[in-house]
Amino acid sequence: MSDLPFAISLGDPAGIGPEIVAKAWTMREARNLPTFFAVGDPAALRAVWSGPLAAIDAPDQACDVFARALPCLQVSDAGAITPGCASVDGARAALQALEASVGLARSGSAAGIVTAPVGKTQLYGVGFTHPGQTEFIAERCGVAPDNAVMMLAGPSLRVVPITIHLRLADVPAALTIDLIRARTIATAKGLQRNFGIARPRLVMTGLNPHAGEQGALGREEIDVIAPAVASLRAEGIDVTGPFAADALFHARARKAYDACLCMYHDQALIPVKTLHFDEGVNMTLGLPIVRTSPDHGTAFGIAGQDSANPGAMIAAIRMAGEAAMHRRAADAAQLAPTA
Amino acid sequence: MSDLPFAISLGDPAGIGPEIVAKAWTMREARNLPTFFAVGDPAALRAVWSGPLAAIDAPDQACDVFARALPCLQVSDAGAITPGCASVDGARAALQALEASVGLARSGSAAGIVTAPVGKTQLYGVGFTHPGQTEFIAERCGVAPDNAVMMLAGPSLRVVPITIHLRLADVPAALTIDLIRARTIATAKGLQRNFGIARPRLVMTGLNPHAGEQGALGREEIDVIAPAVASLRAEGIDVTGPFAADALFHARARKAYDACLCMYHDQALIPVKTLHFDEGVNMTLGLPIVRTSPDHGTAFGIAGQDSANPGAMIAAIRMAGEAAMHRRAADAAQLAPTA
Repeated sequence: MSDLPFAISLGDPAGIGPEIVAKAWTMREARNLPTFFAVGDPAALRAVWSGPLAAIDAPDQACDVFARALPCLQVSDAGAITPGCASVDGARAALQALEASVGLARSGSAAGIVTAPVGKTQLYGVGFTHPGQTEFIAERCGVAPDNAVMMLAGPSLRVVPITIHLRLADVPAALTIDLIRARTIATAKGLQRNFGIARPRLVMTGLNPHAGEQGALGREEIDVIAPAVASLRAEGIDVTGPFAADALFHARARKAYDACLCMYHDQALIPVKTLHFDEGVNMTLGLPIVRTSPDHGTAFGIAGQDSANPGAMIAAIRMAGEAAMHRRAADAAQLAPTA
Repeated sequence: MSDLPFAISLGDPAGIGPEIVAKAWTMREARNLPTFFAVGDPAALRAVWSGPLAAIDAPDQACDVFARALPCLQVSDAGAITPGCASVDGARAALQALEASVGLARSGSAAGIVTAPVGKTQLYGVGFTHPGQTEFIAERCGVAPDNAVMMLAGPSLRVVPITIHLRLADVPAALTIDLIRARTIATAKGLQRNFGIARPRLVMTGLNPHAGEQGALGREEIDVIAPAVASLRAEGIDVTGPFAADALFHARARKAYDACLCMYHDQALIPVKTLHFDEGVNMTLGLPIVRTSPDHGTAFGIAGQDSANPGAMIAAIRMAGEAAMHRRAADAAQLAPTA
């Protein structure tokens, strides 16, 4: 069980995914990475990398070759690949790699998945109907969207946006007590299960400037957020707020909590990307499987130039490894006979 | 002219304003601060500080005593002062101090003003009708509110929120091409005049996640922000965008611009307070006078405990001094005979 490798979907073959996966493999020893294998079309790796590649037929073969070559499980044919030039075949290959990776983790053949970036515009063109990879993975795992939570994490900050890919104008109406509760509960459980934090300390932002100034600058804090916090606290979850968002992310403030629940995309992503742009990890909480991803896009504009920074991919692989370890420890403790 | 002192309004006498003004004075030599004098009720200083205080009757007396005592011009009687306990008399005193300070700068008796924090709830109770000190000062200076721009600045980032104290739900409708243009032009001129930046490089955020993803996540970027940027560029202003806000504030990104125009309060204040919480300065651009302020509130909760950090007040006084210097240099260049 502990020797299972991680499946890394290569994402869009014309993006920087293949390059950063290959670069991560070259740094496997220096960064003490767990064993992993690429899932997709090996031609995408070949197009940008001349290092050793090993075709594998099944995940368990990855462990044998990982020390000397990057294992790759071919599950798709991306057609002609030109780094930087997205194509329909490439989008289809990215989707197939994602789907195969989820399946391997669900079936217990992989310790978890790390997903390289996909081009959403391209995916929509091949019939993809989910807002992003996270929602697709949740569905494949049989988890309701509200219970699968996107957490962005860097070395000194973890944030969870309660609403994500919404127009800003649609955010206020989308915030409900039920949604806030679902995301917060999933966050608390996710921190326990993936990070081994027994009693996670959570804080919550307000929606409006200064958290609404007691209603003078908006009532969502009074009508929605504060009641959600109160009901969560009544159930024993250590969550406080709503607080003025702009005062929550400086160094001293960050020390007081394990994760911050934010009301919308930029409120969460601005602080984590300001602090940890090159090492931000997107982890999905609330899934039966471990899933992380580097917190950046396909970067088509720099693909194929050998200039992509693998820092976030490496951080994503490391975090996946640690999450799998914490899950195994928790499961072992549950199975162990009690005194 | 260059020897004019700065007027520092003490703000709410029960907040941390008096304490941080006094602490700034004690660090005047170490931090090379320009000459300043406090404006308000000296009893507010006495309530929290036992250092040397010199009552003055006019600003020009400040220069004579500044080396040995904190000069204070009494313009109000705050009544009984208990640090941490806001009062009606205190709010009235804060307003009188603000008004007097603006008058001194307008009349050329002070080099500029630095305003300590006020309690807005308290001010509203004594008939104050402006959203904040900035709007009050703009009115007293005869400047239309849209042309007086709040800029938040720390050592590595300057941001300007285009909308400020609005409910988040009201932000999308408040963003107009005219408003964006007015704020951007005031920002460009303000950076020239107060910072000596000949050709300011400006960037602009989008409103929606990922700057709207070409309309998929909102149309404000297409309908409002991009046209504003285009018209400003046509007039020779170096402004680019709209860009995804979460990618604009990491260290590399910040090097590419002198100020970032943001669409709403938290989008601007989260990054600057995340990076520079204890040294953030609020400067009003577009005024005939120099005006700065520490970027924090009254902090009634810690008033009178000698624990307030004067870092932002010191940074505000320094920035006011530098702005006055740049303005003098620009005015001198204009007056100098050309070759």
